[in-house]
Amino acid sequence: MKNQPDFLQLDTTAAEPLYRQIYTRFRNAIAEGLLLPEARIPSARALALELGLARGTVEAAYSLLAAEGYVETRGQAGTVVTPALARHATTTAATAPARAPRTRTTPAASALPTPLNRPFQMGLPALDAFPRKVWARLAARAIRATQADDMAYPPFAGQAPLRAAIATYLQLSRGIDCTPSQVFITSGYRNTLELVTRALLQPGDGVWVEDPGFPPTSELLKQAGMKLAPVAVDADGLVVSHGVATAPRAKAAVVTPAHQSPLCVALSLPRRLALLDWARQADAWIVEDDYDGEYRYASRPLPALQSLDRDGRVLYAGTFSKVLFPAVRLAYLVVPPAQVARFEQISQTFAAAGPALMQTIVSDFMNEGHFARHIQRMRRLYAERRRIAAEGLGAVLGNHLRIDPQPGGMHLVLRMKGRHTDRALAERMRQDGMAALALSERCVLPHAASALLLAFTNIDTPQRARELGRRILRLM
Amino acid sequence: MKNQPDFLQLDTTAAEPLYRQIYTRFRNAIAEGLLLPEARIPSARALALELGLARGTVEAAYSLLAAEGYVETRGQAGTVVTPALARHATTTAATAPARAPRTRTTPAASALPTPLNRPFQMGLPALDAFPRKVWARLAARAIRATQADDMAYPPFAGQAPLRAAIATYLQLSRGIDCTPSQVFITSGYRNTLELVTRALLQPGDGVWVEDPGFPPTSELLKQAGMKLAPVAVDADGLVVSHGVATAPRAKAAVVTPAHQSPLCVALSLPRRLALLDWARQADAWIVEDDYDGEYRYASRPLPALQSLDRDGRVLYAGTFSKVLFPAVRLAYLVVPPAQVARFEQISQTFAAAGPALMQTIVSDFMNEGHFARHIQRMRRLYAERRRIAAEGLGAVLGNHLRIDPQPGGMHLVLRMKGRHTDRALAERMRQDGMAALALSERCVLPHAASALLLAFTNIDTPQRARELGRRILRLM
Repeated sequence: MKNQPDFLQLDTTAAEPLYRQIYTRFRNAIAEGLLLPEARIPSARALALELGLARGTVEAAYSLLAAEGYVETRGQAGTVVTPALARHATTTAATAPARAPRTRTTPAASALPTPLNRPFQMGLPALDAFPRKVWARLAARAIRATQADDMAYPPFAGQAPLRAAIATYLQLSRGIDCTPSQVFITSGYRNTLELVTRALLQPGDGVWVEDPGFPPTSELLKQAGMKLAPVAVDADGLVVSHGVATAPRAKAAVVTPAHQSPLCVALSLPRRLALLDWARQADAWIVEDDYDGEYRYASRPLPALQSLDRDGRVLYAGTFSKVLFPAVRLAYLVVPPAQVARFEQISQTFAAAGPALMQTIVSDFMNEGHFARHIQRMRRLYAERRRIAAEGLGAVLGNHLRIDPQPGGMHLVLRMKGRHTDRALAERMRQDGMAALALSERCVLPHAASALLLAFTNIDTPQRARELGRRILRLM
Repeated sequence: MKNQPDFLQLDTTAAEPLYRQIYTRFRNAIAEGLLLPEARIPSARALALELGLARGTVEAAYSLLAAEGYVETRGQAGTVVTPALARHATTTAATAPARAPRTRTTPAASALPTPLNRPFQMGLPALDAFPRKVWARLAARAIRATQADDMAYPPFAGQAPLRAAIATYLQLSRGIDCTPSQVFITSGYRNTLELVTRALLQPGDGVWVEDPGFPPTSELLKQAGMKLAPVAVDADGLVVSHGVATAPRAKAAVVTPAHQSPLCVALSLPRRLALLDWARQADAWIVEDDYDGEYRYASRPLPALQSLDRDGRVLYAGTFSKVLFPAVRLAYLVVPPAQVARFEQISQTFAAAGPALMQTIVSDFMNEGHFARHIQRMRRLYAERRRIAAEGLGAVLGNHLRIDPQPGGMHLVLRMKGRHTDRALAERMRQDGMAALALSERCVLPHAASALLLAFTNIDTPQRARELGRRILRLM
């Protein structure tokens, strides 16, 4: 028993199950700083032996700790306390009981590690700049106004006011001419993509994906049984001729025309036309993933690819994760008129639209003008933060990294000069608590590309940018 | 132009698209009672001719009106204003502008026809008895307490406090021993079932479904590429031997053991053991759809089938749609410990858990004791409403219908005596604005069963029950 940590005194007579006691004690030990980030914790087998318990009991506790992000499994290296977790956990642990006073078994949600702790986290808007008070006011009003009718099943394709508000918005801002009945509300981009595969594709169908690309897209298509056809991307976006040469008979292409994910380049007009041409000839579908088309700083946002579609081949996927915030879990899909009936059937079967309350808050937010104002403000803010981040990082790291010029998006592409590889540096940055991604990790095809992908959306001062630059420099 | 209704004066110089003008004018005409329920509206072709517009313009307007429930297409009989809509639309139209004052194109959500207007609507809890004030208080608190961290991506498998609260609840109320890490939050039962097919099944796999059964289950499995194997149901629930005889090599069975949907019978213990036995031998999965297991009136709720599972074959699907309300769009899945890793992967890929806010409200509602109190109250209320409905309908319709004795559930099964068929009567009731279902419509296998399925959850007085009974009697 000599190796048993002191904090692990279990009470075998308590009503609380033993696995939960283990879980709680580890959690508290992490929150209180007894176990520091990166600290190794005993293997389940070893701890079970020491405590005289079944190994499954310890494994249940560990699995919960891992699921909640307190610990990380590192293969051969064993299980360690998640880096960059303890400080945040400690500071919030004290406030947690106020939220859920009567619960003993509930862990404090706010004690979990969050992406906001990690500089450069991709895909995260500037949450500090979100108009929380306006949002809270609309939410409170929607909750007060809730009638029994509003508590029944919401329409499967989404609530009419939200669908209409989105159709109006898309017409004004993205050049998309659609009726509200073409707009389907979903629970997020992945859910959107899943609906498309259910409605229009068969397992075994080939699908073009951009390379480098957005890993969740490939992962979802793979899980849905599609055959991935990686297609190269250059300075003009997707190299359509490469797709035509390597996978002419694919049934769909998933593309990010506004700001290619992750290179941030725009799909050029000739390429757009070539892609539409291929889709028509191949009888294929194009999914336009327009995740942050609003955020273009060099000029006005480009009209969507969908606005060029004359053959009803483009499915436009928008999301509120970037222009509002990810936890809202609402996105949407615009389908060609001829596909409305098919998607009505599919959305009824899979019931994708989110809770009525969230839909009401978002449509009120849009209809009362807050949405357009927020996007305008964020466009200015991101242009500024992009400049601050590029200047600050460039000043410190200019000898080692070259920052891509790019017209929009929410992250920087920093090309590696010299001997460094992006993977090794990104890995060192992650170990240091930063959320770096390596471009080469996003490629399947052979590429010479070696670059860091760093979001600038939450870098708010030049000081902060230089400080982060110096932190990276120390790792080189 | 002589047939053009007066209300359809379009303004060709307005910024509002013509289809939207048509849509708005029809909607207002319906709301104001100019167009009465069941009134026939001109065909798109005829109206386009009269207005001198492209047929597609009128079709776009009609498609939106249909999608929002203002009109119904009746095949040869043309398109009519939805029955039982006008009164509700009229009374709420006046309040709608207060909700969305600056929007012209947004229809009033509350003017839509809702299931609450239609007596006997299945699957709908007694929304009038929901503790709306408590809920609103918790929601307002959760919104006020929202920090930037809470706005980032919520954990893919669901928020830890909600997963823990569900695990605790299931242990106490349903005899299910699970860790929070086995609990996966989803966006509703259909989403749960979809996750199961993604994680564990392949297109082409056979799946047992109950017959009679729950049509959305069959529809979803079919859309997901599964081969349906209908299995008979008798007074002891699923006839396992029938499944073994007809589809021994199926890869899964979806069952409703607590109250079979729609017969409300409980799966007997010998059948439960036989089902588990088959699953073990066939290496198959059992999905336990426990949609309203809490609502048993004759005795204490039965422990879940999952609690008998010794081989890790049962996936337990619970939902908040019945015990809270459908618009909350939250459900959950409990998976065997050996499947946790697989479902973590799948839930990450498909990102099923709902918005952070809804999860927080529900976990607070559970952790602060409201959930258990609400279920207790509803169990008493439903027992009472079941008695009231059975007595009231029985008193009027006793010569024509015999009400099944049943231990629980949220609807009555009324067996037809004599010459009436359930389908014809249910159809007449639907035309009369009631939400009747016919048992024979839920069968694929040959059955002699002829019965009405009528929810009693929103029948609140003996007068109301007798009044509805007389309304049915007039249709016989």
